[in-house]
Amino acid sequence: MIGQGFMGAAHSQGWRVAPRFFDLPAPVEMAVLVGRDAGRAADAAAKWGWTESSADWREVIARDDIDIVDIVTPGDTHAEIAIAALEAGKHVMCEKPLANTVEEAEQMAAAAERAEAKGIRSMVGFTYRRVPAATFARDLVASGAVGEIRQVRANYLQDWLVDPEAPLTWRMKKELAGSGSLGDIGAHAIDLAQFITGQRLTTVSGMLETFVKERPLLAEGSGLSGTASAERGEVTVDDLALFTGRFDGGAVGSFEATRFSTGRKNAFRIEIAGSKGAISFDLEDMNVLSVYDGTAPGDRLGFTRVLVTEEVHPYMANWWPTGHIIGYEHGFSHQAKDFVEAVANGTNPSPSFADGLQVQRVLDAVERSAESGSAWTPTA
Amino acid sequence: MIGQGFMGAAHSQGWRVAPRFFDLPAPVEMAVLVGRDAGRAADAAAKWGWTESSADWREVIARDDIDIVDIVTPGDTHAEIAIAALEAGKHVMCEKPLANTVEEAEQMAAAAERAEAKGIRSMVGFTYRRVPAATFARDLVASGAVGEIRQVRANYLQDWLVDPEAPLTWRMKKELAGSGSLGDIGAHAIDLAQFITGQRLTTVSGMLETFVKERPLLAEGSGLSGTASAERGEVTVDDLALFTGRFDGGAVGSFEATRFSTGRKNAFRIEIAGSKGAISFDLEDMNVLSVYDGTAPGDRLGFTRVLVTEEVHPYMANWWPTGHIIGYEHGFSHQAKDFVEAVANGTNPSPSFADGLQVQRVLDAVERSAESGSAWTPTA
Amino acid sequence: MIGQGFMGAAHSQGWRVAPRFFDLPAPVEMAVLVGRDAGRAADAAAKWGWTESSADWREVIARDDIDIVDIVTPGDTHAEIAIAALEAGKHVMCEKPLANTVEEAEQMAAAAERAEAKGIRSMVGFTYRRVPAATFARDLVASGAVGEIRQVRANYLQDWLVDPEAPLTWRMKKELAGSGSLGDIGAHAIDLAQFITGQRLTTVSGMLETFVKERPLLAEGSGLSGTASAERGEVTVDDLALFTGRFDGGAVGSFEATRFSTGRKNAFRIEIAGSKGAISFDLEDMNVLSVYDGTAPGDRLGFTRVLVTEEVHPYMANWWPTGHIIGYEHGFSHQAKDFVEAVANGTNPSPSFADGLQVQRVLDAVERSAESGSAWTPTA
Amino acid sequence: MIGQGFMGAAHSQGWRVAPRFFDLPAPVEMAVLVGRDAGRAADAAAKWGWTESSADWREVIARDDIDIVDIVTPGDTHAEIAIAALEAGKHVMCEKPLANTVEEAEQMAAAAERAEAKGIRSMVGFTYRRVPAATFARDLVASGAVGEIRQVRANYLQDWLVDPEAPLTWRMKKELAGSGSLGDIGAHAIDLAQFITGQRLTTVSGMLETFVKERPLLAEGSGLSGTASAERGEVTVDDLALFTGRFDGGAVGSFEATRFSTGRKNAFRIEIAGSKGAISFDLEDMNVLSVYDGTAPGDRLGFTRVLVTEEVHPYMANWWPTGHIIGYEHGFSHQAKDFVEAVANGTNPSPSFADGLQVQRVLDAVERSAESGSAWTPTA
Repeated sequence: MIGQGFMGAAHSQGWRVAPRFFDLPAPVEMAVLVGRDAGRAADAAAKWGWTESSADWREVIARDDIDIVDIVTPGDTHAEIAIAALEAGKHVMCEKPLANTVEEAEQMAAAAERAEAKGIRSMVGFTYRRVPAATFARDLVASGAVGEIRQVRANYLQDWLVDPEAPLTWRMKKELAGSGSLGDIGAHAIDLAQFITGQRLTTVSGMLETFVKERPLLAEGSGLSGTASAERGEVTVDDLALFTGRFDGGAVGSFEATRFSTGRKNAFRIEIAGSKGAISFDLEDMNVLSVYDGTAPGDRLGFTRVLVTEEVHPYMANWWPTGHIIGYEHGFSHQAKDFVEAVANGTNPSPSFADGLQVQRVLDAVERSAESGSAWTPTA
Repeated sequence: MIGQGFMGAAHSQGWRVAPRFFDLPAPVEMAVLVGRDAGRAADAAAKWGWTESSADWREVIARDDIDIVDIVTPGDTHAEIAIAALEAGKHVMCEKPLANTVEEAEQMAAAAERAEAKGIRSMVGFTYRRVPAATFARDLVASGAVGEIRQVRANYLQDWLVDPEAPLTWRMKKELAGSGSLGDIGAHAIDLAQFITGQRLTTVSGMLETFVKERPLLAEGSGLSGTASAERGEVTVDDLALFTGRFDGGAVGSFEATRFSTGRKNAFRIEIAGSKGAISFDLEDMNVLSVYDGTAPGDRLGFTRVLVTEEVHPYMANWWPTGHIIGYEHGFSHQAKDFVEAVANGTNPSPSFADGLQVQRVLDAVERSAESGSAWTPTA
Repeated sequence: MIGQGFMGAAHSQGWRVAPRFFDLPAPVEMAVLVGRDAGRAADAAAKWGWTESSADWREVIARDDIDIVDIVTPGDTHAEIAIAALEAGKHVMCEKPLANTVEEAEQMAAAAERAEAKGIRSMVGFTYRRVPAATFARDLVASGAVGEIRQVRANYLQDWLVDPEAPLTWRMKKELAGSGSLGDIGAHAIDLAQFITGQRLTTVSGMLETFVKERPLLAEGSGLSGTASAERGEVTVDDLALFTGRFDGGAVGSFEATRFSTGRKNAFRIEIAGSKGAISFDLEDMNVLSVYDGTAPGDRLGFTRVLVTEEVHPYMANWWPTGHIIGYEHGFSHQAKDFVEAVANGTNPSPSFADGLQVQRVLDAVERSAESGSAWTPTA
Repeated sequence: MIGQGFMGAAHSQGWRVAPRFFDLPAPVEMAVLVGRDAGRAADAAAKWGWTESSADWREVIARDDIDIVDIVTPGDTHAEIAIAALEAGKHVMCEKPLANTVEEAEQMAAAAERAEAKGIRSMVGFTYRRVPAATFARDLVASGAVGEIRQVRANYLQDWLVDPEAPLTWRMKKELAGSGSLGDIGAHAIDLAQFITGQRLTTVSGMLETFVKERPLLAEGSGLSGTASAERGEVTVDDLALFTGRFDGGAVGSFEATRFSTGRKNAFRIEIAGSKGAISFDLEDMNVLSVYDGTAPGDRLGFTRVLVTEEVHPYMANWWPTGHIIGYEHGFSHQAKDFVEAVANGTNPSPSFADGLQVQRVLDAVERSAESGSAWTPTA
């Protein structure tokens, strides 16, 4: 695994726990943790249970005893590492967004395609697809329970930047993060909406907004936390992205991604309405899917609050008895499980780098629309 | 109508509005409002739209041009007025609880039975039976949707007495109110639980508690509000009633009635679980009935939040379009409508005085159980 | 009152009930109901309690004994009637939207301004401003509880047109209704968002969509119901309107109005987030306002579910005790009360025709944006 | 660890994960898994990551390299194993209920007291105390936020026995399980209510009910699942326990524990109301604590839905960013952490065996009350 931030902890938990609850076709060994700083990498490896650590990712991906490379670094480094790893014959899992630009994403998707020809697998980490309620939503839609889809409402709302004195981290610098709310959490909204509906956005109209344009620089610390200094720097990414879109299956959608929605901590809410039914999901209450069956008797119509903890629900047979909920990190175990299965069985895991590229193109179209007066902008 | 407190306003709205939304078999004229104090009765009559007022209920019930007597006075006066009115050949609607004692209620039920032989109708005002969601709940249970009922949980929770300085009104004096939370709101819990389940409590085990034993006397004002004086008086009724019971159909139930449940304003919550399904209701959200269908597919199980505003729901075809909710007082219009229909059609309205007596017997059994160490006490 | 559809029933209830709960400075007499068809007007007058009926609105507005004209006809007739009534010296309450076009609305606003110089009052019926939770939301925002507003999310979702066989009523014909979801319910979303925030939309980017382009013609019946015939006609209005906007106070907003959102019956949801707090409202649960106080202690943060039924809440002291909820039509009583007070006290009621015109301009800007590729379009 | 059922999986996850997220004062080594059947124990050890397995718990507790014994077997074996382990000088964590009888629990508490004198620690696994929202509830009550506590409502509702054909497992046999819903989940309700309130039940009045008196025997399989045979056996434990109680601090409480509440999967709901505020919790939504502050301004009163995922909340600083929820098994990591800290720091972990004994006495009092007509029965 390359990288040691918040995502490093989450992916480590995925690799650690998956084999304890699922019957995997191959054993998982947590071999090497790679970080820029050798000391911090060694500490993180010890903490998280990786056998070794290293500060040199190139050396690690060259090793024969490494089968899988898991990339959890900031987006600006994904392309270089992922392409090198694929070319070294390693199966690659890469955190989302796939890259910071369409160009990089295209190179990665091309590398993944070349690798696939040699049996090398790759996958982008849109983990929320593997929240059981989200997977179940996809299944319901695919089964026709919602009918012809008409509206999609996808809001990903957080509020950790509301304080104008919150310091300027890498996530607020365009050169490192690519974009702000849009790429960070808007990318999830796009991917999950497309995943559940089985439709793709063809055209978008959007706007971006930066509410707080200057913030204190980080005096010390890194990642997403640290002490503020007296100096200030410019925020070069969006605080909010708002866009509408048309899907290739006829649905229309509205999207919002922001880290400024006071009171919403991790409220990733998706509502889908169709000719026969509707579904509603909120990541803050992630074990629940609300399902509306428009074909129910007229006096029994309403949203059913399905607690997605039954054995028949995706992934849930391997966890706890009914009614015992799971948490944020379980999606990483599901992701690890599915990736190991794909690698061992010689199938392509999903979402692919091509899927990641497509999301990148939507993000890019939103940015271009925002720059051109919110005009409709095709995503391809 | 005899009485002019909070219930007078509610019943007046019922009589006023029912003919405007429902097609009644007879016209409704709001003829005379009777109150102890002539001046206040005249004011209330003008305010609420009654043609005349009077301070002498005996005179009014003797009038030939009066068909219906609606009694909304405190419980200690119900028996005398209702029996006199029935004997004068008037149809009688009487607020709940039917009386303050089993003895009075027995006399009233006997009077109602004698009157019925002459075609005179009577009804006790357990209005919540006519909240559409509650009526619908009864219909669902009667249709077998819940199967064999196993548990009933009925809590009626308010918090308007939490403040120990809230003054001592008639509702806290046993000689006027009969009992405290038990008779005031516990009576509703008993009636509605029995109504929805179609089962009757046969035996109960209960406790009563008075948390604040002395309160400031009312310096001036009456009814439920007024200014506190410096003197204090004893609270002679319960602040909380807690009891369990067994129903004649095999269900077991737990009940709580209190005006001390901080944060609950008018939370009358009923949950019923059976072999095939379950329902859940809360008066604070009275347009909703939550319905669980245990026969649904295993991945679709959950409580459905039915917004009881469809044309097919009880009483709702005559109000607003779907999704437009109704409020507290609509039950009084439904009650007025059903009573007028019964009188005009020569049928017996429900709940009868006999039903009111049966609730009184349950209340009495709870009090006796509480006095005898919570021992099981039969209700009949 | 001119008009006798669904809105006629609602306004009648407002006039009927307001004087019974509020102390009005002048008595309310429900004098004449006017409808195109004399027989149906007479029936409606009898049903709703109007003293007389008429088929000639011109005659009625010429009468000396009429002080107030309440217009509840379809939007294409508002301008002619309202202007005539104002010129006849009558105070005018006019249902929303003020008109079907900006031009008509401008004429109405001009007429209202001329009338105001003579002490004649006018008001447009954006009744939801008078839902106590909405009024309270406005008060909270005005008090600074939300801080600097950043996002507005306003969705008005219904589903009564999901069935493609629902017949073509006047609401689906552009010449009668002006627009579809946009003018019908989107107008409410715009007005209420502006009312609560105290900010006005300056520019919008929008799209309109018609999902079902042909529907059965009405064989018989009128208004919003009737029997479908075998013939079909074209739907000339939108089924869905989706737009974003910028407010003059710096907030950004997203709006959706649709009668196709399966499962949502009357879900008018508004969320407002600011630098210090946030609020959330849903008309299906209209007695509740969820309030987030960002200045609360860090371990106590969260949305507080305020049941807006306390004496201190707007309008609520005159209804029922705490916890006893009100329904859809109570807003019409509040509207009647406020209008009578304004007329009697010689003040201008709100929202004015000028406010109605401004909403009309926003609706028009959304339509023009939709026609020009969703480009940003100024509202003035 | 001795035992390998559902609780074995949960405890294993606790030991596995705790050191990866918390900074423990001592390393955790998952040494030996003990199970009655050597083969199954070996499989479970491999699956869950224990270094060794054994079929002989006596041998294992005699080993010098074992410091901690974690007992997750059925309740009838707790006393023998725990006492032996304590006498062998091992720190003991024992699943709840502490034992199946008061007598066994007394012996265990006595053994724990003797061991404590030698620095040997023991703890009973009422894990729900370590759900952050529950710990936070305790903290709030202790801080006085709720004031003087008046009511406790504690329901633990599941529905996995509603099907009368669900087979007869050890949990339905009195000789193995001690009691039914009462000891299994009612014990949690008692413990958590006492933990949060800081008060102890002094007297109870209760009833027990067995709805389905015969069930198919298990043909094969064990634990909580397996295939049903054609033969039937008697259910010798309760399906439902319903009781009321008085606490030593003046509060009154109502309790229900049942595995027959159709639609409730793992609904452990606790409501506490006091003179100043109230709290409400539901394990199905375990990351949330609803808090009512009765001292808030009159127009802002309501339950605040606190998402207990902030750094300042108990245990949460070590998991994920705000808004990222945790699941059922996290309590086991918190329990492991706290136990390791107590052992390493030489302090007594909580809840102690004496606490477990006290819960056992309450369970026993409920059973005795149920046998004596629901009469008030002291718990000590």
